[in-house]
Amino acid sequence: MAIKVHGPIMSPAVMRVVAALKEKNLEFELVPVNMQNGDHKKEPFITLNPFGQVPAFEDGDLKLFESRAITQYIAHTYADKGNQLLPNDPKKMAIMSVWMEVEAQKFDPVGSKLAYEIAIKPMMGKVTDDAVVAENEEKMGKLLDVYEARLKESKYLGGDSFTLADLHHAPGLHYLSGTKVKSLFDARPHVTAWCADVLARPAWSKTLELNKQ
Amino acid sequence: MAIKVHGPIMSPAVMRVVAALKEKNLEFELVPVNMQNGDHKKEPFITLNPFGQVPAFEDGDLKLFESRAITQYIAHTYADKGNQLLPNDPKKMAIMSVWMEVEAQKFDPVGSKLAYEIAIKPMMGKVTDDAVVAENEEKMGKLLDVYEARLKESKYLGGDSFTLADLHHAPGLHYLSGTKVKSLFDARPHVTAWCADVLARPAWSKTLELNKQ
Repeated sequence: MAIKVHGPIMSPAVMRVVAALKEKNLEFELVPVNMQNGDHKKEPFITLNPFGQVPAFEDGDLKLFESRAITQYIAHTYADKGNQLLPNDPKKMAIMSVWMEVEAQKFDPVGSKLAYEIAIKPMMGKVTDDAVVAENEEKMGKLLDVYEARLKESKYLGGDSFTLADLHHAPGLHYLSGTKVKSLFDARPHVTAWCADVLARPAWSKTLELNKQ
Repeated sequence: MAIKVHGPIMSPAVMRVVAALKEKNLEFELVPVNMQNGDHKKEPFITLNPFGQVPAFEDGDLKLFESRAITQYIAHTYADKGNQLLPNDPKKMAIMSVWMEVEAQKFDPVGSKLAYEIAIKPMMGKVTDDAVVAENEEKMGKLLDVYEARLKESKYLGGDSFTLADLHHAPGLHYLSGTKVKSLFDARPHVTAWCADVLARPAWSKTLELNKQ
């Protein structure tokens, strides 16, 4: 099989790449990486990603890492397959890029801290730091106020159609929806509708199904 | 004038956008924003960027924010002007995207913390936190080891030609070169040569000249 994704499907960054592949109806092989064992910090993995982080990606002889670079490659290279994930107008493309940056620079750092404190630490037998949660809940609330205003103007972040800017949020929306942070989404009607829409996509269901296998 | 960049030229994110415009030989108006006054958190600025951060950008009726989204818009829209900032091959474009993500996700957070502690805090009469400096110097060293290996393979991060992946680093390289962090660059010959090359570009000199005006 030509396309390989290296990493565990429960990783948000791996899910982001798999969701893009599922949107495009592309066949791929999911290659497990035993992170408990530290295999992502050793050869042969670090030849694929010298930073030792999942996912790593192969398409024939092309080797990539960084989930958001991989999804862009998939969306551009397989533009004629499955669902379109890019706007076809350069100005709309620029707006999509703005919201891709917002996800990477603003939503993800805050969302990841919340998910770690509320969901992951208890699983690991560690104690949630309530001060960190409170600080990041406040940040997330302010961030979602901007999202609410944006989503009042257009159905999706990039405009009228679903794009990578929305898709990149799916893993974070999925994990946070299972925590008390969901109340921050629920308090904002346009964010609520957008979140439901993003998580209801068939490609996202197929991504989650891989997690159950 | 059609293109406007809102923000002070000393801001690294503003410099990143101005450097791209200078590479493309584009005319633009630099609109001052008084950040000491908090003007970036008030109208009319927050209509341009609801997150209240510089730069904001206008090209006719198109309004953008997030410096890395703006540079991509400039590079794509004005592809036929000035210096080419994008590879013309989709696979090389993907490799460039990987290194643009590395700059945004890895280099910039560590570099910004170092610049803040070593350069900005003393200017503000605050005390540098040596523990934060030591922690981030160690991170930067490990990061630059990966850069050194990459730059041994190819002259620039994206491949054989200068691209946005290199340009995005220029503000950080510029500010850190004026601090003791420079010794981390100097210890790695390929990083040293790349850094000198990036900072020697005429478009970068023109960007710095605006700072002197």
